[in-house]
This record gives sequence, structure tokens and C-alpha cells, in this order.
Amino acid sequence: MQRRTDLALESREMYRAENNHEVPGVKVKTEMAGNTQITRVKIINDEGEKEIGKPVGSYITLELPLDIRDKGAAYELAIDLLCTQLKGLMKDRSGTVLIVGLGNRSITPDSLGPRVVGYSLVTRHLFDLLPDNNYKGYGSVCAITPGVLGITGIETGEIIRGVVDRVKPDLVIAIDALASRRMDRVNRTIQLSDTGITPGSGVGNHRNGITEETLGVPVIAIGVPTVVDAATMANDTIDMILDELMDGADQGGDFYKMLQELDRDEKYSMIQEVLTPKGMGDLIVTPKDIDEVVDTVAQIISGGINLALHPSMTLEDLGRY
Amino acid sequence: MQRRTDLALESREMYRAENNHEVPGVKVKTEMAGNTQITRVKIINDEGEKEIGKPVGSYITLELPLDIRDKGAAYELAIDLLCTQLKGLMKDRSGTVLIVGLGNRSITPDSLGPRVVGYSLVTRHLFDLLPDNNYKGYGSVCAITPGVLGITGIETGEIIRGVVDRVKPDLVIAIDALASRRMDRVNRTIQLSDTGITPGSGVGNHRNGITEETLGVPVIAIGVPTVVDAATMANDTIDMILDELMDGADQGGDFYKMLQELDRDEKYSMIQEVLTPKGMGDLIVTPKDIDEVVDTVAQIISGGINLALHPSMTLEDLGRY
Amino acid sequence: MQRRTDLALESREMYRAENNHEVPGVKVKTEMAGNTQITRVKIINDEGEKEIGKPVGSYITLELPLDIRDKGAAYELAIDLLCTQLKGLMKDRSGTVLIVGLGNRSITPDSLGPRVVGYSLVTRHLFDLLPDNNYKGYGSVCAITPGVLGITGIETGEIIRGVVDRVKPDLVIAIDALASRRMDRVNRTIQLSDTGITPGSGVGNHRNGITEETLGVPVIAIGVPTVVDAATMANDTIDMILDELMDGADQGGDFYKMLQELDRDEKYSMIQEVLTPKGMGDLIVTPKDIDEVVDTVAQIISGGINLALHPSMTLEDLGRY
Amino acid sequence: MQRRTDLALESREMYRAENNHEVPGVKVKTEMAGNTQITRVKIINDEGEKEIGKPVGSYITLELPLDIRDKGAAYELAIDLLCTQLKGLMKDRSGTVLIVGLGNRSITPDSLGPRVVGYSLVTRHLFDLLPDNNYKGYGSVCAITPGVLGITGIETGEIIRGVVDRVKPDLVIAIDALASRRMDRVNRTIQLSDTGITPGSGVGNHRNGITEETLGVPVIAIGVPTVVDAATMANDTIDMILDELMDGADQGGDFYKMLQELDRDEKYSMIQEVLTPKGMGDLIVTPKDIDEVVDTVAQIISGGINLALHPSMTLEDLGRY
Repeated sequence: MQRRTDLALESREMYRAENNHEVPGVKVKTEMAGNTQITRVKIINDEGEKEIGKPVGSYITLELPLDIRDKGAAYELAIDLLCTQLKGLMKDRSGTVLIVGLGNRSITPDSLGPRVVGYSLVTRHLFDLLPDNNYKGYGSVCAITPGVLGITGIETGEIIRGVVDRVKPDLVIAIDALASRRMDRVNRTIQLSDTGITPGSGVGNHRNGITEETLGVPVIAIGVPTVVDAATMANDTIDMILDELMDGADQGGDFYKMLQELDRDEKYSMIQEVLTPKGMGDLIVTPKDIDEVVDTVAQIISGGINLALHPSMTLEDLGRY
Repeated sequence: MQRRTDLALESREMYRAENNHEVPGVKVKTEMAGNTQITRVKIINDEGEKEIGKPVGSYITLELPLDIRDKGAAYELAIDLLCTQLKGLMKDRSGTVLIVGLGNRSITPDSLGPRVVGYSLVTRHLFDLLPDNNYKGYGSVCAITPGVLGITGIETGEIIRGVVDRVKPDLVIAIDALASRRMDRVNRTIQLSDTGITPGSGVGNHRNGITEETLGVPVIAIGVPTVVDAATMANDTIDMILDELMDGADQGGDFYKMLQELDRDEKYSMIQEVLTPKGMGDLIVTPKDIDEVVDTVAQIISGGINLALHPSMTLEDLGRY
Repeated sequence: MQRRTDLALESREMYRAENNHEVPGVKVKTEMAGNTQITRVKIINDEGEKEIGKPVGSYITLELPLDIRDKGAAYELAIDLLCTQLKGLMKDRSGTVLIVGLGNRSITPDSLGPRVVGYSLVTRHLFDLLPDNNYKGYGSVCAITPGVLGITGIETGEIIRGVVDRVKPDLVIAIDALASRRMDRVNRTIQLSDTGITPGSGVGNHRNGITEETLGVPVIAIGVPTVVDAATMANDTIDMILDELMDGADQGGDFYKMLQELDRDEKYSMIQEVLTPKGMGDLIVTPKDIDEVVDTVAQIISGGINLALHPSMTLEDLGRY
Repeated sequence: MQRRTDLALESREMYRAENNHEVPGVKVKTEMAGNTQITRVKIINDEGEKEIGKPVGSYITLELPLDIRDKGAAYELAIDLLCTQLKGLMKDRSGTVLIVGLGNRSITPDSLGPRVVGYSLVTRHLFDLLPDNNYKGYGSVCAITPGVLGITGIETGEIIRGVVDRVKPDLVIAIDALASRRMDRVNRTIQLSDTGITPGSGVGNHRNGITEETLGVPVIAIGVPTVVDAATMANDTIDMILDELMDGADQGGDFYKMLQELDRDEKYSMIQEVLTPKGMGDLIVTPKDIDEVVDTVAQIISGGINLALHPSMTLEDLGRY
């Protein structure tokens, strides 16, 4: 019955909305950099893990301004901020990095990961080919796009583990498209974390996880919500309407009582039923020009990664790869 | 404040839901062909025109079964039905036909028209090149994809009129992506009409219309809803919830009264505001695999058009072009 | 039997190679701008027209350096040079400009025109919508991609004339992919001319031309060779080999005589036969990564056009559209 | 100095053209099936391996007729023939099959492998999910597209080995785009072999091979030439011209002698130099509409594989996946 969000930021917001106090076992810091809000959610113990539904670790969220789409100063600042936050999460900046572009390149809102790989500068084969060369300022980077279960018939985690066993990278950076609860976060919010990716319904389901535990090397996850689940969107809108009705109602009256008694979970499953006619598959809410928007975000992420892994590169170099 | 639908069928449903009787000035007939429901909405006078919000004429809707996506028997039946209905709307089957693929090929839910053009067999240039040849069983067909205002800077209607003035076709068939109110109609409902396309908020705004009046030749419109507007979807879901609440409420009670008093139009604009944060553009609800689905529908429509315009073609020939 | 080139520059080279003097009726000037060679071929009378196979007018060719592909300084200089040359060819810089992207977007080497349109800033509809606004520094620009005969069944020229009759632009800029004789010119040579486009085998065949004569407004053509015809390539290579053999042969000997007697035109048709097995369509020689290269060139051309038509735009603005 | 072909068939043709007898250590059988020529080149010992430049094993080539492109009877026959030949090469038809789509999806002539994967029916995850289900007539199939070294920074063989170690398939089927010497073989010749893929200049360079030796499971390779290397094409054309000249020359004369003395290898390197200006990358000869053609071939190959691995599937089912 958990409504869908992959952002630690939003799990915390939901907790606070219901409980009116900070999540126990969680520390939060926010700051502004230009028009970008940076929120650090640190889950420090089991209690926080349970309430947020994510493993102990750091979750950094950049909420970028809309004008990143103009590819001007805001766009360049976004690349710079991502680079800085990513470097902060990397314990050790030497060694080989494997970038993993998760998702399905044929389905636009799920194509973020493969697009980031397409824009990334890979160098590992050059290091192998000409080991005596001087690559000062360039790191050893490789990348894969493992595909999705429905296309490969293989758990994504299995493919990644197979490649990690061969390539033996020192760090994995995994890129994925996420779900958010709020349309105004879609395609402009970037979450970085040092906990890797734990697919399915969160903590505990480590079978297919892409984590240090399963891969044997640290995993940094970078994700961006590209869609809102349609049922979640309808549900949230209805909750807002109901809240508004309750605000206006007499608190002792029958109406107020009935609204209070309304089982919100039952309402949610009713919505899901209404919205997903048999055989139609998942419905999503998305901006009409999603193709262009996702591409811009992929360029920001690959830009930040390129600058973090190859200190000799500059913003001007990014357009060339 | 008009909520968005381009289907005469749905305008009629909305009228009946509010008024509990048939729309005056409108005649409706339905029949089944296999699992496909065929609905003919005939608007016969000004009164019908006003209530439905569409000009006098015939609107035929095919509601196809979900398994058209398997490309088996249901898919082939859909092509056949479309061919038959299209031939029924064509007064004269000789002469040159101009197919107009409306919409933006770069935005998946808007790319139906350009895709249909891509799958259509054009022959007019062969008739011009070798006029003495015997093209028995093949009609003279040409096609354009005029693009959209934001890309061309020219009203679509202006481009079409310019081409019609030169090419002087005897019939225009215009293909467009539509909006529906119901997710279960998306990508499986085809509307044909003999009234052309009257963009904007319906009747009266003929400035940019693609109609016999503006082009000087008959225009048949073929459209398929590929999205549901997100605000419409949220609104409809809320209305269903409210109706359910009213069903359960004591009809004389305060609660019932408050629900009755709730201004549904005000609610709709509130939803729109909530859902469309500044600068995010239009939000749509769509299946995740829309690219594939729209392509299947484009093949059904082009298949039906090809068979109707080139009587010598068979279902087997369709895959070759 | 004419071997294929669309560059006035190369027609002139071929004439000089055979005749060892400048083409009569033609004036040529060359200059360097950075690493770019700029050649101006001016055809001044009927004699030049006949020898070059192109109508009287100015043909400016930019031979850009290879590193435009790095999107650094050379890329930006190329945009700047194109902008300057284009402004030089425009008699009048006020009024509405119609950009015409010729070619087939689905066939990479033929997709240059449609790609340029995709990157161009169109504004005409804004001028129409808000005529009282102050658009200082922005011109009125619109754009179409008329498609190709095999897809539309309509001569490209007919479509353009239809649109020109409606839109009444003051200038047409037509973009097209060309053929060259030399691989080292492919995808880095831009030809501008004030004579429009005369398709087919050059001068005289004005039926489908896109020229001031057929459209009633001045036409500037911008073209880039994106392929070399395979037969031309094989033929040129063989000629080079033969020339080398003749250099080494005794000028009075039998061998030299036989080489001299070898009918080069007969050789060419033999090559064509060998290279184009029945039903295989046109063969082209192209770099393997043509998709990326053509896109870079399309960005250079659209960049130059945008800067020329909208004086308020800067290089930094270009990435945003 | 070896000119480029990946077809055993062509290596044998070249040997016979120079030596006028069958290659020692090689057995060849040809037969016709409709308009398709089937050639079986069997390399039986080291001598054959050395002369053909490929490892001991079976090489089956289908030379399909041009009208496979019409997607009619010839297309269906091609699928059927491929299915039959593939089954002939599979020693054991139970167990899990891993399909490997080699090549770069962004470069059309190199995209055959990834396209075949896209059209293949994968089932392994269903067998894992519902192991008790009855999948009679369906095999367990999975698939990967490992990408290319320049994009991943990892040898393709390393990625495949990593995945094979995890998935433990019983057979690998690897699909790749090849080079041919003859344009009339491009995009209509399919080579199957039971030797896997030995990249680079053939036998001996097993470091990055995709073979039973390196993977530990049998590997069937399926390849189609999608391009002719431009230097090879020019060279072959020139050789034909020279042969023609020699035919016409007096055998005792100077001219004949000079032609005989002409060092053909030197000529080839001269051509390469002429054709590949610095920095231009590989030049290829290709039909203009390669995108469509490669897609048809990918559908034939995936069709044959699907029918071979899933005996319950029929030709009609193929369009559905």
C-alpha cells in the first residue's frame, strides 16, 4: 500500500506531514547554492532506515531551477554542483570506475541511465592499451548499459556482478530513473547516495540489489525522477481536495467526521483500479516534451561525472564527447 | 472551463450523464463487429452542434479490443473495419487523395499523423511520370506532414492550403492525435468524420480549420486519442470518488449538502493549478510503452487507408511499404 | 556521362585539370580565415554557365578544418564565418525568411536539411500573434521540411511554391545535402550561392527548380556534400592510378599510347555497371559515423543562419534552441 | 595487406581465383533452395585453416534473393531456411541459450546485433519466476547487447565472459555485422558457423575471441555483411579494369609486361592512402537506404532464431514480439 517515491527527501516529507516531527534516526541539513536547494538526508540507524524505507547512508538531493533547460548559466552551475557532491561521496578518487546506466533506452522516461553512458568519456581501454602513457588528470573509466529484465531475461544485478567480477572496478556509479510524488520535482531533482540501489520495496530485498554488499565494491547511486505514477498523482490531488474540504468543515460536524473516517488506503486502491484498466500496463504522468528534457538532464549528470572523474576536463570539453 | 475531449462519443456521454436523455439534434447507432464496438454519432442540426461542440456531420468511432497489439486476427480485423468505414465516408472514390499527417513527429503521443504518412503508399508521382501506364486498382495518392506551428512558424492550415492550391486533390484525409477523457480509450479508439478538423475550442473558430470550407475540397478526419490530459484525469477520478461518497451519504444530511454545494468547476481549476507548476508545460497521462503502441495504431490506420484507396492491395501487401 | 559533383569549386577544378587554364566567364578568388579556405567562384556569363554547368551567380565555398567536430574554437569560427558569408549574400535583411530543409530525414546522408530546420529559431508566428511586441534584434523566420518525392508523391518545388504563395516570404534559404567528388570534402565543405537550387543535370532544367524564377522571391542555397557517389570514387581512384602509370611510361611507347587510347567514359560506365547490381539502389561512400558528423554540420549551419537572421542572438544562445 | 572479408565463402573464392584449384583441407557443397544458394564450406584441418584464415569448423552461407525486402514469400522462406540451418548446427536443443548482439546500435551498418536482440523472444526470467509452469514448446532464452570497446572501455569478450559465468547458458548465439568484398552480397548474405567469433585478423588471435575455448560453452556465430570497405571496393574495381586491359593486350608486348609488373599490393596501399584522408575514420560503401535494409535482415535473423529456439512459435507469431 506504500505509495511510490524513490526520493529519501519525499519519504521524510511524508513522515513529517503525518507526524509533525523529524524522523527519528535521521539528520537533515539544507542549503541554497544559487537557486538550487541542496538537502542532505542522513539515515543514521535502524529506526531511520525503517521509517524512511531506505538503508543507512547519505542521500543528497539537488532541486535545480527550471532554467537548466536553457543550457545557460543554471545548466553549467548544475553540472558543477553535481561534480562537487559526487566528489564528496567518493572516498577514494584513484582506481577504475564503472558507470552503470540502468533502464530501457527505448522507453523515454526510463532511458536516463543509457543516455548518461552515451555522454560519458570512457578511458579504461586506453589505459590498458598504452599503460605507459601519461594520463595525468584523467581517471580510468568504463561503462555498461545492462538492459532490463524484460529484454534480456537476466536480472540486471546478475549482469552487473558478472562484469564487476571481470573488470574489478574500485567504484560503481549507477544511474537510474526514479519516481517522485510531485510533478514539480520531475526532471529537475537529482538524488545522489552512497548506498547503491535496492530495488523492489526497499530495505531487506537485497536479492537483486546493486550495492556494496552484493558487488563487493562501493556503489554510488545517482537518480532523477522522470515520471509520477498516475495513481499516486490522482491520489495526492484528491488528498489535497479532501484536506481543503476538512479545513472548511465544522470540526464537530458529521461531514468532518465522515471525511476523517474515509479510509485513505481503500481510496488509493480504488483509484488504482479505476486508472489501470486490464492490460493497459503502467500509466505515468509526464511532460509532453519529455524526450528533450530527459536528454538535458542526462547531459548534466554525465557532465558532473566527467568533471569529477577526469580533473583535467573543463566545462568547454564536455560538448566534445 | 471545458474539460478536454476530442471524441464526439464522449461529448455525448457527458451530456447524457448530466441530462439523462439523448442529445437533441443528434442521432446515435451502435453495433458490434467481433469485439469492436462501432458507434455512429450523427449531428443533424444546430442544436446538436451546440450541445456536442462539433459541426454537423457524421462521427464514427471504432472501439477496438486490446489484442490489436498482438498483430494477429484482431489487428487485421481492425484494418478491415477502418477500410470499410472510410470507404463509406468517401462520396467519390476516383481522383487524387492528399493524406495530411498532422502533429509533431518528435513527440511520441503527437506523432501519429507523421507515422501514418510514413506507412502510406503514395503513387501520384508515378501517375504523373507515366500517365499512359495502366494503374488499375491503384488510386492516385500523395501525402504531406506539415509540421506544427512551434517548429514552422506557420499555421498548419496555411501550409495545407498552399499545397492544396498546387496539387488540387479531390479529397483530403487528415490524421491527428486526439485527447480522450478515459484511459481505456487511449490508443485503441479511432474516430472518423466527414467534417474535417476544427482546432481550438470547437465550432466557430474556423480560422485555422482544415475543412471543406477552408480548403475547397472535402476533408475526412481520422483521429485516435493517444493521451489523457492529466488535469482531466485527476478531475474525473475525484468526481468518481465524490459520487461514491454521495451514494453512501444520507440525502438530507449536512454532508450530502456540502458535497452538492462543492463547485466542481472551481475544483477543476484548482487541480489545474496544482498540476501544472509554472513552466512545466502540458502534463499528460500515458502508458509507459507509448512508442510501440502508437506505432501499431499508425499501421492500422495506414493499412485501412491503403486498402481503401488502392483496391488491388491485399492485407499481405501492407507489410511491404 | 557527367560525373557527379554539386560543388562549383569542383566543376572548376575539373575544367582546369583538363584544360590547364581558368574557365572562361568565371572569376575566382580565394582567401584563408584561420584554417578555413574560402573560395568565391563567380559565374559572370553564358560561357561560364555552360562550362561549369551552373547558372550565373556567386558560389562561396568554406572548406572547414577537421576539428570542427571537437565543438571547440574551430566549430565556433565556422558558425561565425557562415553567418558573415550569408549576410553578404542577403541583399535586404528585413522581412520574413522561409528556411526550407530539403531531403529525407530517415536517410542519414540526406537528412541535413530537416536537421537544420530542427535547430533553427522560428519566430514568424510570434510576430503574427503579438504584432505590437518589440522584437528588436530578432527577424521574422519560418521553416518547412517539404519531404521528398518518393514519400510525398509531390514535386518538392510544388510544395514550396504552394507555401511561398501563402506565406509570401521576402527570402528563401534552402538547405540541401550535396555530392562531392572528394572524400576529404565530405561533411566539412559548405557551399553558399545566390542562385537557388536547380535540380537534375543543372542549367536549363528549371521545371522543378527552387529559384527566384520559379518562386518569385530570392533564393539562397546552402549545401554540404555528405557523400561521394561510389562509382565516382572508384573512377577517380582508377584515374589516379592510370595517371601514375602514364607518368612512369615512355611517352613514345606502345603502353603510353594504349593508356591514352583508353576511353575514360567507357571505363566509367563499366564501373557503374560493376558497382550497381540490379535492384541495389544507389551506392554511396561515407564515413562510418556519419550520423554524428551530419548532426554537427547541421548545428554549424543552423547556428550561422540563426546569428545572421537574429542579430541579438549570441553564440551562447545557440545551444538553447 | 589482407583485404577485408569475413565470409569463408569469399576467402575460398579468392584462393581459387589465384590458384585455380580447391583449397586444400576444405570441403565445399552448394545447393539451391528456391532462389537461395546455400554453400557449406567445411574446414577440416590446419591446412584449410591456414589458407582460409579461419578456424576448423563449418561455415554455412545463405545467399538470399533481393526480394526478401518485399516481406513476402522470399522473406518467409529466408526465415525458414535460417531456422533449419541453425537447428542443424545446434548439437543439443535443450538448456538455456544466450543471444549476444554484437556491435554499436548508434551506427546503422554496425547495429545488426542489437537489433536482432530487440526482436528476440526472451523467456529465461519466466522460467525462473514460475519454474513449475509448463513451457512446452518454448526454450529458455536470454540476451545481451554488450556494446563496443569505444563506448564501454571494456573488451566485449570480457563482458560476455562475465555474464556467461553468472548465467551459465548451454549455448551462445552471437550476431555480428561483417564485411564483404562484393556489393551484391551486402545485406542479403547470412553466414552461420559453429566456430564462434575470432576478431582481428583471424586464427591465432584468441585473446578477445568469443569461442567455446574462451567461454566454456559452444558458440554459434551468425553474421551478415552490411558494408564493403571503400578501399577494397576501389581495389577490386581497378583489378577488374586491369584484367580487362590485359585480356585485350598483346601477351608478348611491353604493355602486357608492365601490367604484369604492377605491384598489386603497392597499388592497394596507395588506394588506402588516397581514400582515407587523415582523421576521417573508416570509409564504407553502403546502399543509401541502409537503415531499412538492416532492419529487414535483423527481422529475418531473429525470426529464424525464434522459430529454432521456440518450436511452438509459428511465422504468424513473429510479428507480435
